[in-house]
Amino acid sequence: MKTYIYGKHPVYEALESRPDVVEKVFLDQAQYPDIDALAKKQSVFRQPFDEKKLEKKLGEHAVHQNIAAIVDTEALMRDFHAFLAEYLMSDIKYSAPIGLVILGEIQDPQNVGSIIRSAAAFGIAGVLIPKDRQAQITGAVIKASVGTAFKIPLVAIGNVNQTIGLLKEKRFWVYGLAGEGEKSIRDEDFSENTAFIVGNEAKGLREKTSEHCDVVLRIPITDTAESLNAGTSAAIAFYEWNSKQR
Amino acid sequence: MKTYIYGKHPVYEALESRPDVVEKVFLDQAQYPDIDALAKKQSVFRQPFDEKKLEKKLGEHAVHQNIAAIVDTEALMRDFHAFLAEYLMSDIKYSAPIGLVILGEIQDPQNVGSIIRSAAAFGIAGVLIPKDRQAQITGAVIKASVGTAFKIPLVAIGNVNQTIGLLKEKRFWVYGLAGEGEKSIRDEDFSENTAFIVGNEAKGLREKTSEHCDVVLRIPITDTAESLNAGTSAAIAFYEWNSKQR
Repeated sequence: MKTYIYGKHPVYEALESRPDVVEKVFLDQAQYPDIDALAKKQSVFRQPFDEKKLEKKLGEHAVHQNIAAIVDTEALMRDFHAFLAEYLMSDIKYSAPIGLVILGEIQDPQNVGSIIRSAAAFGIAGVLIPKDRQAQITGAVIKASVGTAFKIPLVAIGNVNQTIGLLKEKRFWVYGLAGEGEKSIRDEDFSENTAFIVGNEAKGLREKTSEHCDVVLRIPITDTAESLNAGTSAAIAFYEWNSKQR
Repeated sequence: MKTYIYGKHPVYEALESRPDVVEKVFLDQAQYPDIDALAKKQSVFRQPFDEKKLEKKLGEHAVHQNIAAIVDTEALMRDFHAFLAEYLMSDIKYSAPIGLVILGEIQDPQNVGSIIRSAAAFGIAGVLIPKDRQAQITGAVIKASVGTAFKIPLVAIGNVNQTIGLLKEKRFWVYGLAGEGEKSIRDEDFSENTAFIVGNEAKGLREKTSEHCDVVLRIPITDTAESLNAGTSAAIAFYEWNSKQR
């Protein structure tokens, strides 16, 4: 699928990290000489930024900074089986346990982008994105990820529960994140390959999904707040996982 | 200042926790019988939700769920000196070290709301909000805080650097948060009263502010991401602080 992305940072990262998925860049050469040169170097087609025409594509409220691009998000997404094979077979590169995250029906593009950014920040190896009932990769997601969506593997998966089954076969420990989780995340040592599942903003994890997890972890909070934001929960889980890898 | 707030959760929390600052509630009695009853119990004036009229006040893109209220944000904010006196003198209630956060020119209402929510979740005693160059408490902030803005003390402060000086006099340890911080947050034990300062989304902490801090802490991240979101950094700092209080 062709998706419009926008903003200086996302377009720069796309050209720098994944020029193969960038179809065209819209920018004013005088305003962005460096990005223009980078696009040229990567053999990406350039076109002037026509605000009137592009606003229809980007949406009225997109903070576009007069720069946009068309990317092929299908080409950006990796195949799950190929991804797993690559990560699990390359003994040298990944002798330490790896961490993955599965998005479990996250609806807010801000949260999806924020989870991608935090995953990249804390060394998570890939973000697994179900095809259904899950916000897909859009310009808003990529903007919220500050371009990290081009730097960390995004992996297309089908059914979440089947994916959990497959990961368990590959000896991953699969952890749900939920306020009512049975174990505090502080008490987990994450010494094996790990996959986290982050549930929907309002409904949390599906019951069936919780049942499929090895353990459902909670991040201990006070009574003053009923819950944490989905993006915040994920970030803290990645931080804690990363702490335990030292 | 009178501010319109909106959404079921924020209006409910306002009526439940701080009815004294709520001037009027707009709702449909049949749709929200419980909140209507709560407003009546708290002696708050109720009026039908007139979407056309209210949309002008709330903004076109506010997810209002057909419920809104007018709150007095000035009455919501506490005085800094009174707040400090209350917290530092009540030996019995606060025998453990307390944690505070200072917002250092945060511009995005989503981030402000998210920081308030995470502060509430991890037992931070108050959110200190400078009068200038800082996004103030609005409907969007309160919505992003999921109503926790009515449950955790919000404290009005003047100049950030003067506030740091005053907190140091009261024997607080003042920590800046920055990617280039001199010490990893994991190595800090937070055994004394603590104040965190979160800097601007794009520019980070002001140089003068960094100089005033006792220590500038970094949250260690990989090279794949250049930085963390301001709200995410704050949440992780509060989580780590809270972990060390056990």
